[in-house]
Amino acid sequence: MSFLKNIDISSFDVQVMLPSNYFSFTPLLPSLTCGTVEARSIVEPIRNIIKKKNGQIQFREVECVKIDATNKKVICHSNDDTVLGKTEILLDYDYLVIATGAQVNTFNTPGVTEHCPFLQEVEDTQKIRRSVTNSFEKADLPNLSQEEKIMKLHFVIVGGGPTCVEFTAELHDFVKEDLVKIYPMVQNLVRIIVVQSGDHILNTFDERVSSFVEQKFQRDGIKVKTECRVIGVSEKEIDVKVKSEGIVSSIPYGMVVWSADTGTRPVIRNFMEQIGQSKRRSLATDEWLRVEGYDSVYALGDCGTIHQRKVMEDISTIFSAADKDDSGTLTVKEFQDVIKDILVRYPQLELYLKNKHLRSAKDLLKDSQGNDMKEVNIEGLKSALSHVDSQLKGLPATAQVAAQQGTYLARCFNHMEEYKTSQEGPLQFKESGRHQFRPFWYKHFGQFAPLGGEQTAAELPGDWVSTGHSSQWLWYSVYASKQVSWLTRVLVASEWTRRFIFGRDSSGI
Amino acid sequence: MSFLKNIDISSFDVQVMLPSNYFSFTPLLPSLTCGTVEARSIVEPIRNIIKKKNGQIQFREVECVKIDATNKKVICHSNDDTVLGKTEILLDYDYLVIATGAQVNTFNTPGVTEHCPFLQEVEDTQKIRRSVTNSFEKADLPNLSQEEKIMKLHFVIVGGGPTCVEFTAELHDFVKEDLVKIYPMVQNLVRIIVVQSGDHILNTFDERVSSFVEQKFQRDGIKVKTECRVIGVSEKEIDVKVKSEGIVSSIPYGMVVWSADTGTRPVIRNFMEQIGQSKRRSLATDEWLRVEGYDSVYALGDCGTIHQRKVMEDISTIFSAADKDDSGTLTVKEFQDVIKDILVRYPQLELYLKNKHLRSAKDLLKDSQGNDMKEVNIEGLKSALSHVDSQLKGLPATAQVAAQQGTYLARCFNHMEEYKTSQEGPLQFKESGRHQFRPFWYKHFGQFAPLGGEQTAAELPGDWVSTGHSSQWLWYSVYASKQVSWLTRVLVASEWTRRFIFGRDSSGI
Repeated sequence: MSFLKNIDISSFDVQVMLPSNYFSFTPLLPSLTCGTVEARSIVEPIRNIIKKKNGQIQFREVECVKIDATNKKVICHSNDDTVLGKTEILLDYDYLVIATGAQVNTFNTPGVTEHCPFLQEVEDTQKIRRSVTNSFEKADLPNLSQEEKIMKLHFVIVGGGPTCVEFTAELHDFVKEDLVKIYPMVQNLVRIIVVQSGDHILNTFDERVSSFVEQKFQRDGIKVKTECRVIGVSEKEIDVKVKSEGIVSSIPYGMVVWSADTGTRPVIRNFMEQIGQSKRRSLATDEWLRVEGYDSVYALGDCGTIHQRKVMEDISTIFSAADKDDSGTLTVKEFQDVIKDILVRYPQLELYLKNKHLRSAKDLLKDSQGNDMKEVNIEGLKSALSHVDSQLKGLPATAQVAAQQGTYLARCFNHMEEYKTSQEGPLQFKESGRHQFRPFWYKHFGQFAPLGGEQTAAELPGDWVSTGHSSQWLWYSVYASKQVSWLTRVLVASEWTRRFIFGRDSSGI
Repeated sequence: MSFLKNIDISSFDVQVMLPSNYFSFTPLLPSLTCGTVEARSIVEPIRNIIKKKNGQIQFREVECVKIDATNKKVICHSNDDTVLGKTEILLDYDYLVIATGAQVNTFNTPGVTEHCPFLQEVEDTQKIRRSVTNSFEKADLPNLSQEEKIMKLHFVIVGGGPTCVEFTAELHDFVKEDLVKIYPMVQNLVRIIVVQSGDHILNTFDERVSSFVEQKFQRDGIKVKTECRVIGVSEKEIDVKVKSEGIVSSIPYGMVVWSADTGTRPVIRNFMEQIGQSKRRSLATDEWLRVEGYDSVYALGDCGTIHQRKVMEDISTIFSAADKDDSGTLTVKEFQDVIKDILVRYPQLELYLKNKHLRSAKDLLKDSQGNDMKEVNIEGLKSALSHVDSQLKGLPATAQVAAQQGTYLARCFNHMEEYKTSQEGPLQFKESGRHQFRPFWYKHFGQFAPLGGEQTAAELPGDWVSTGHSSQWLWYSVYASKQVSWLTRVLVASEWTRRFIFGRDSSGI
């Protein structure tokens, strides 16, 4: 999306292929499940975006099923659901940008696909919404025993990420704020339980956040089962195994939502097998988002992972490139000449300097007494930089990363001709000359986990953690500003207002 | 709905059974198909209405499958879709109010159920909406010939009632106002055709209205095929037979919507077979909405038809009841004493007087010279009233009738005890005493048929017919005021505004 918004259409002939004709603002998906926000309000037809680009972008509502990187072709299927089968469409490309996202990972757990709705697409959330009200309607039928009613109102959520926590909170609020008013007879029978295989929920967040959430859930009567793996789902029961004890138990449920880790889409899996990456979970790209070994194929978002090179892997190349007079030692000046390029090429160095509270990279060159060194040999450089790579971190699988990558990539494409002659990238250490572009650089603006009851856990840059009502308002404003268009912005805001005044709608549509 | 809103819950124990947990404002269904109004905005959870009644009404989300009037029981199925099958629930009743509405009539045309979406439930409209945008996406695939594209964008609408006309108009507006902007490449390929078996569309309306609509459709490029019966629908073609010529032709289509006449729901069909009404299209009720022969079963809305007794059927009973002194002739006074009851019992008499421009029923008693008669014998009365029954008209199958019947019936129930002693109804001619209640009396407030392009055909009481922009505004205000609740009223109004500003959304969800 951010790629499409920023790409310069005058120099490229862009074709977009997607199995649905709209973009959705995925961070609000959990809000859809309980009707806090309507599906229409977070989607934007792709063709509207194209219209703003004067229609120079071609859109095809097709599903990409195979990538042939050798012949630079993609094979797509149309969404025809006729008995004649799907129509196959073959498209050539010069550059291919893969941004399919990931899909829910079932870990091949038996019964999951059959019995659990996922939290992934807009359609899923609509299914979940219908299911929730349906559970209440079913529990209110006259021929049920108390036990059966409790069973029907037992909601099990598998997973522990922010999406899962937000859905749990939404569900809890929906029940407490809206449904109890219209289903007073069943209100005390509702049980919500979160099953997480890790040792904490929200384990990509700061520990303070995750323990706050666990405590809040406990106060709200939401049970959290950590270190607990789902081993099977049948029509009315879910089998879980507590890791430490190895005991398998069955939990009867009314509804299970599966929101576990991300998995690989079949088309990406197939492509990865072709290019010898079959053991990975997502496409490995270099720091310029190019799929390794395929210069004209780019991957962004959750379907790719940047394989950041380590400083120590390249240390001797760096040393010989920096040692211009081949003296076998680097002077401080030689080191300073090259350090800017190292900082750009290896972002972990900057993180390292920050964590060590060093003002500049020059401060690395100190001897054990803390005195500045005049020059350094290869062993000295190695020991100075030896801990830098410990700061290497994978990027989170969030919309924030994908959006920044899209903008970055569009910029690369737009400047492709210009930077062929005047490269903007850092020095190439292995070869002569510079890289054409700066590598992708992720700027983290923090992350949110709405907790329900007008509270949100926020983790912002600068080690700032906040949980409470103020961050809920921050959340409202950030998410409103991130909407695709002004129309959706107005709609989402008006639905938040509507929820305050009228509550959520419980019609089973 | 109007019944539930008006019933006095203190004296009755009311149970509502419905296969979905919401009411929808059906007159706006066609607006849903193209996203002029969102589905959420015209539905109201039944439990919200119950909440306003302090929860004294029981609601069950079940589908009624069998009515056993002899034992005063109904058999319902829960909406469980488990492999174990549906749960059967048995409910007793003292009074049963049937208000299931009708369902689309396929006339057993082969292929209709498989290939044609209907225009009946909220779910149908969502399916149609997805289908419409889907047709445009399919037509824009690169591997299609011009001919195939035209085929994919050929919309066939079967039917000719107000719903059908409104949908056609909505579809035309959606294409012309919104879709051409984002699918510019296919805009000239769209064809819309209405297939109607009668000789005119809108044949329940005034002739001026239907010819205006036909002309407007012609100007808009919408083809109207009257006197044309659909004899079969296959996956890509619809077979029609022109009645006059008897020629069968096949029309290739991209999408067919079936909005033909109303048919009988299976549960009603089954009940009608039990009570010997199997040859009818809907339940026959008396003028008090009681199913004939079953005093505790009421039918309202499209699933029942009032069987209004004719004056001439009862003429001798009326005569002997009126002839209090058994003289064999009625004096003017005797006639006047009874005429008020006749007017209430046989509404066709009032219509007759109005059409003949007679000021009062007394004016009926004139001889051939136009002089007032002093008295009249049975033959004289017969000839005076002989043409009255020609004014008998069935009630239209509209929400307006159903709403008035609901209010009427709630009033009857609320006053049941009170009127046992002091009857409000007209004199019983066959037996002594009075009827407990006045018979149902329909007050026609006119009907609308929105024509698209901000025009609406309106037919109002007093022979007032209007087609144009002013009636569109009348339509907006009437439909806004008829909404179920203030929330839906606000939502519908804001969506009309949104459509003016932003157009309709074309996302395929």
